[in-house]
Amino acid sequence: MSRFWICVFMSTTAVGIAAERFDPTVPDVVLGIHGGIGDADQELAPEVEKEMRAAMELALRNGHAVLKEGKPSLDAVVAAIKVLEDSPMFNAGRGAVFTNNGTNELDASIMDGKTKQAGAIAGVMTVKNPITAARAVMEKSKHVLLTGRGAEQFAKLQGLEIVDPSYFRTEHRWKALQERIEKEKNQPAAPGAAFQRLTKVEYGTVGAVAIDHAGNLAAGTSTGGMTNKMFNRVGDSPIIGAGTYAENGVAAISCTGHGEFFIRYAVSHEIVAQMKYKGVTALEAADDVINKQLPSAFKRKPDDAEGAAIVLDKNGGFTTAYNYPALYRGYITKDGTIRVRLNQK
Amino acid sequence: MSRFWICVFMSTTAVGIAAERFDPTVPDVVLGIHGGIGDADQELAPEVEKEMRAAMELALRNGHAVLKEGKPSLDAVVAAIKVLEDSPMFNAGRGAVFTNNGTNELDASIMDGKTKQAGAIAGVMTVKNPITAARAVMEKSKHVLLTGRGAEQFAKLQGLEIVDPSYFRTEHRWKALQERIEKEKNQPAAPGAAFQRLTKVEYGTVGAVAIDHAGNLAAGTSTGGMTNKMFNRVGDSPIIGAGTYAENGVAAISCTGHGEFFIRYAVSHEIVAQMKYKGVTALEAADDVINKQLPSAFKRKPDDAEGAAIVLDKNGGFTTAYNYPALYRGYITKDGTIRVRLNQK
Repeated sequence: MSRFWICVFMSTTAVGIAAERFDPTVPDVVLGIHGGIGDADQELAPEVEKEMRAAMELALRNGHAVLKEGKPSLDAVVAAIKVLEDSPMFNAGRGAVFTNNGTNELDASIMDGKTKQAGAIAGVMTVKNPITAARAVMEKSKHVLLTGRGAEQFAKLQGLEIVDPSYFRTEHRWKALQERIEKEKNQPAAPGAAFQRLTKVEYGTVGAVAIDHAGNLAAGTSTGGMTNKMFNRVGDSPIIGAGTYAENGVAAISCTGHGEFFIRYAVSHEIVAQMKYKGVTALEAADDVINKQLPSAFKRKPDDAEGAAIVLDKNGGFTTAYNYPALYRGYITKDGTIRVRLNQK
Repeated sequence: MSRFWICVFMSTTAVGIAAERFDPTVPDVVLGIHGGIGDADQELAPEVEKEMRAAMELALRNGHAVLKEGKPSLDAVVAAIKVLEDSPMFNAGRGAVFTNNGTNELDASIMDGKTKQAGAIAGVMTVKNPITAARAVMEKSKHVLLTGRGAEQFAKLQGLEIVDPSYFRTEHRWKALQERIEKEKNQPAAPGAAFQRLTKVEYGTVGAVAIDHAGNLAAGTSTGGMTNKMFNRVGDSPIIGAGTYAENGVAAISCTGHGEFFIRYAVSHEIVAQMKYKGVTALEAADDVINKQLPSAFKRKPDDAEGAAIVLDKNGGFTTAYNYPALYRGYITKDGTIRVRLNQK
């Protein structure tokens, strides 16, 4: 498998488009995941890398087991994302970043490509696995998006696991908030600066895309948002069409990155629309949005509009596009072959 | 003008597509608005109709005056929507419907077609003109979507007009909530019925689309959501790509209707995508989404997926599509000709 991968990558390099960042399409994938974008220049400490890899591999194996039992792709997406939410290594569930209010506010969404039904929650502070709350909204409510206390009350009523807000607190994220506040203090103040400042964010949003034996596609995304975001800010992760989209016969998509730009460019729906109406491949569509449209967006700072999309097409072809040094991503094929990539490794 | 209108409509009837509901494209429009969908079989009381017409005409004239001064289309969108928010006749600002919690929760969004910047707020209870808060989020924050108390604090800090939540309360909306609660009590209970029930909603969302002398497009939408919605439910109005979208060189769109379906179908972005990638007109794209895709969506009740879109294309062509008996809509042309239509009149 690894030889095959290298071979494809080299051939891509040869046609001269390797300067942009993407992974060539891998066939026969049943589940793909991401754990956000990262800095390639900041080598991950070996113990960090080991723990991230372990969580991502477990997420892939759990999702694969679900699919092997003949269960729907929605179940695989939830199974995979739950593992990543439970790991403190990612900015989702436990390990979420802090708002400028010192709280952890969690967002998640899920979409069923078969019915185009969807569910999402934003700004919850007490639901252990936000992705399960998103699914409950889809299946047990008449709504698509619930926020804050309304979402929490609904989740509780549905019997989902409720935890104390302190469950989500991790020391490394708390430290990140303090560093961010300190750094912003030292920036030159401008009128309205408190809201104008664009700061580099710790990403780590997680997502999954899956296809089941019946060809049904599903996608899901879960996040704690941006460090030092205004409380009650909603990014792209809970927005259907921005962070998450799935449509049978086309593709399932999960995004991560600077959420505001992903909302404005309706990134996940744009990928589906290009595939449907322009007739391009998943890779061409994702590469266009992530590596051309977003970088050409009006930039207030050099690292605006950064991010990535993972795409699983109707045939099980898995691809990614990212305009940032690294994307933590992985996939598992039908026969159980796993590959997890952190940075370029 | 009115003869021209009838002439176009008849020619459309002749080609046999009048069974679906849309308005043929009107040229030279600089501002189009809607005040939601309605029941054609429920004749509006003359005094209601008079007041609605007066508000819609004032909205159009105020927006037109702004454009005539050479100001950007964003200003015209805000000027028009403020009039409709201030009128108790529409489900936006004063006159908003009630949640099942007995509160008025307001949502709004705005998008600038020139920069593709956008702003939105959801679930605010104290900002007099939600559309101005959406604009402030776009221009004065690093975020696109703020909700609840976070949005309210931000609006206050920006010096926007803050009112007591009771300002939004109107007797006719309160009565509507009581009737809805009574009606739902009498429906047969099913497991999870409290969240499964789909009830016919009082619409009345407002929106505006405009083009200025420089060809810049803008769109905005404002709403109180659905009567008896779960509190903290977010519909399509504050979702960029669902209720609102604008892209220079393509079109500006504002939607109204059963928001959950508009999110799932990313209606406003879908219209833009079809125009860009499929090469169809605004009317063809809007008609496809509103009159074909949405009605074919999985329906749990006959009036699921109902709604409308108003579209202003890059050349000032204004069109609407609606899959419900009536759409309250109007436009004003460059030379100041106004037309407002309630039901088929």
